Amino acid sequence: MMERISTVDIRQHIGQRVRLAGWLHSLRRMGGINFLVLRDGWRLVQAVAETEAELGPLQDGILGLESIIALEGDVVSEPQAPGGLELHHLAIEVLTPVTEVLPVSLNKRKISASIGTLLDHAVVTYRHPTQRAILRLSAGAMAGFRSALMARDFTEIQTPKIVASATESGANVFKLDYFGRPAYLAQSPQFYKQIMVGVFERVFEVGPVFRAEPHDTTRHLNEYVSLDVEMGFIANHFTIMALLREVIAGILSTLAEQYHAELELLDVHMPAVPTEIPHIFFADAQELILQRYGVDVRGEPDLSPQDERWLGEWAKQEFGSDFLFVTGYPMRKRPFYTHPDPERPEYSNSFDLLFRGTELVTGGQRLHLYSDYITALQKAGLPLEPFESSLETFKYGMPPHGGFAIGLERLLMQLIGLPTIKLAAMFPRDLTRLTP
Amino acid sequence: MMERISTVDIRQHIGQRVRLAGWLHSLRRMGGINFLVLRDGWRLVQAVAETEAELGPLQDGILGLESIIALEGDVVSEPQAPGGLELHHLAIEVLTPVTEVLPVSLNKRKISASIGTLLDHAVVTYRHPTQRAILRLSAGAMAGFRSALMARDFTEIQTPKIVASATESGANVFKLDYFGRPAYLAQSPQFYKQIMVGVFERVFEVGPVFRAEPHDTTRHLNEYVSLDVEMGFIANHFTIMALLREVIAGILSTLAEQYHAELELLDVHMPAVPTEIPHIFFADAQELILQRYGVDVRGEPDLSPQDERWLGEWAKQEFGSDFLFVTGYPMRKRPFYTHPDPERPEYSNSFDLLFRGTELVTGGQRLHLYSDYITALQKAGLPLEPFESSLETFKYGMPPHGGFAIGLERLLMQLIGLPTIKLAAMFPRDLTRLTP
Repeated sequence: MMERISTVDIRQHIGQRVRLAGWLHSLRRMGGINFLVLRDGWRLVQAVAETEAELGPLQDGILGLESIIALEGDVVSEPQAPGGLELHHLAIEVLTPVTEVLPVSLNKRKISASIGTLLDHAVVTYRHPTQRAILRLSAGAMAGFRSALMARDFTEIQTPKIVASATESGANVFKLDYFGRPAYLAQSPQFYKQIMVGVFERVFEVGPVFRAEPHDTTRHLNEYVSLDVEMGFIANHFTIMALLREVIAGILSTLAEQYHAELELLDVHMPAVPTEIPHIFFADAQELILQRYGVDVRGEPDLSPQDERWLGEWAKQEFGSDFLFVTGYPMRKRPFYTHPDPERPEYSNSFDLLFRGTELVTGGQRLHLYSDYITALQKAGLPLEPFESSLETFKYGMPPHGGFAIGLERLLMQLIGLPTIKLAAMFPRDLTRLTP
Repeated sequence: MMERISTVDIRQHIGQRVRLAGWLHSLRRMGGINFLVLRDGWRLVQAVAETEAELGPLQDGILGLESIIALEGDVVSEPQAPGGLELHHLAIEVLTPVTEVLPVSLNKRKISASIGTLLDHAVVTYRHPTQRAILRLSAGAMAGFRSALMARDFTEIQTPKIVASATESGANVFKLDYFGRPAYLAQSPQFYKQIMVGVFERVFEVGPVFRAEPHDTTRHLNEYVSLDVEMGFIANHFTIMALLREVIAGILSTLAEQYHAELELLDVHMPAVPTEIPHIFFADAQELILQRYGVDVRGEPDLSPQDERWLGEWAKQEFGSDFLFVTGYPMRKRPFYTHPDPERPEYSNSFDLLFRGTELVTGGQRLHLYSDYITALQKAGLPLEPFESSLETFKYGMPPHGGFAIGLERLLMQLIGLPTIKLAAMFPRDLTRLTP
């Protein structure tokens, strides 16, 4: 038997006979001539059967789409065919027959179904080229993230997801029974990554985080993949912002270089990352909104989505940048471990990165002195006990440090322009969805 | 201020003055001369203060070990010093003072504490060079795993950890409250990775899995990192075994090439991976045990740890191999989705990989026909309903496929020769341990 090649390698075999295997993606019978498209794990390829006989086991029309077939044929250059080549003189073998009718058609250019149907039948709809491309870009983003950090001497960590107490507050946390004791699912690896700065200085993690937020919106998931980074020996949050710029640029260049086909299929407009991303101080941003848009949001402790859109618009017009850092959010809206601005202690050494007018990443400098943690917990009205085990690390020498977390699905949603974050997740979890 | 360099780069600065920063790892005051060791996120470096004055803020002995210091000095080649160089003419600055006494001494060659103490104070003990080296090898193993698979066109996936039903059985699964409904923590990404074979053909995942096994042994963790692989269009389990050989070789060569210092520090004897790992059929292995060791285990449905040790010994003597595949485990001891051996249907197309006489990896071919799943569930006495959503994929064309899962911590434990798997995990979870 001829060895199977993949659709990626077929271009090197023009003029030769090859064997492919994959899914019967489509079959159009036009009287004398039949067009068949095979899909394997990577791409599509068209095959042409000029006689009924060449269709072999597909002749009688009993076998359905998505049947697994092996297909031998001669590779012919054909400028009009998708991808510029097609197979002729076919010999077809069925490996796994399918007789059920698909819940959603997979062989149209765009998949046409409600979001609910897409997600209910995700085990099938992920096979559609566009849905598959989204998930492939997800893999590419993870790879780009890791390689940007490994090139900068960061060490990968994997921290526990079952924890004894909520990271930041008892709200919005999933509770479970741990051998008769209460335990929780980690809302973030926050303290663990800080602890590991005490070991490796520079760490990153790619892993699930869990948020029991009872919201069903286009921007919320109850489980998502967090791309976490933490770094020691920083000057302040600006060190972290410079690192984040490099990481975002690394992710985008990995996608641009290695995922061209997926970006094209999804018609993604790739942003340029400025050498230095513009930044604006929180209070100045509010002032700017008043000046420019006539709305007085000064004194608000946070930016609204509308504020973010205005700032995004301004950054685009003023600097030509899709990205904008807003720095120095008020301390009272940031978690207790946030480092204050030494000069203006009601503001923090923290930032958000806006991408096209929407928050994409949050980060900042953290407290690094044990005594500051004790004070901050008291100020926040939080008990010491649940944090005691993690805080031990701050008794034994921690450098100034900080970090950020990128939500993988949010990054993809915003980059691709998806209508909901649920389409950027692999088997999303929301208020009502636990399957597939 | 001089720019800080890392201990990794210091070798390029012999004869120059440099600035380092890190933790005060040790300080020996020998009357006139003082030896100080600084540790940063990577290595140790020795500094020599020939006068008390050079100790600066460390002079009065109030500042404790693990204080964060910046250290300027002249880099001098010194064959007797650790690493062949040391710093002279010091100027020391304290960045974060430490006054508490460490729970465990970090500056002895070997860390000396009970396993309980090591784990209770993991936030500090992970700073010890040997403990740190274990966790660094863990990062290296993940990197080696991923790069071996990406080089073979595998796509990375991230599947949900909150699931609607247990994968294999209702036992040993952590239950949680999902907005008023019962849900579970995934025991493995088994069905999800199979489903994604229908999309990408070749997938891998690095992620946490959760096992509510009420055992407290040196070989069990209740949460661990699983390196999962699944591949379509295989001939049978031997295709998967060949892939696993490449993946193991890839992990080991990544460690050998990029983690030399850690392997040396931990005195790891790296195994050679034979071009073809020897394999023995389950029933033949039992026959061999009778012949060679005089113990009749024929008819047992599984191998005992003692059986595995004997087989490991045999593989070493007979083939000089630290690795041995045992193939064809009886169907009744394998999960219901396992593909039977077509010629001997009471045996399965599955395998275990033994490493130095202990099981390291389990894998095999899976069922790929929907009708086979229905039959297998009935035979196992399992209800269809919890699996229905996942099984939809098998209605729509799945190729013969299979895969394996490597427990990251078990791999490290066996490779390094650790007394317990808990020392190979980052913040392990066991029956009683939920912190740190």
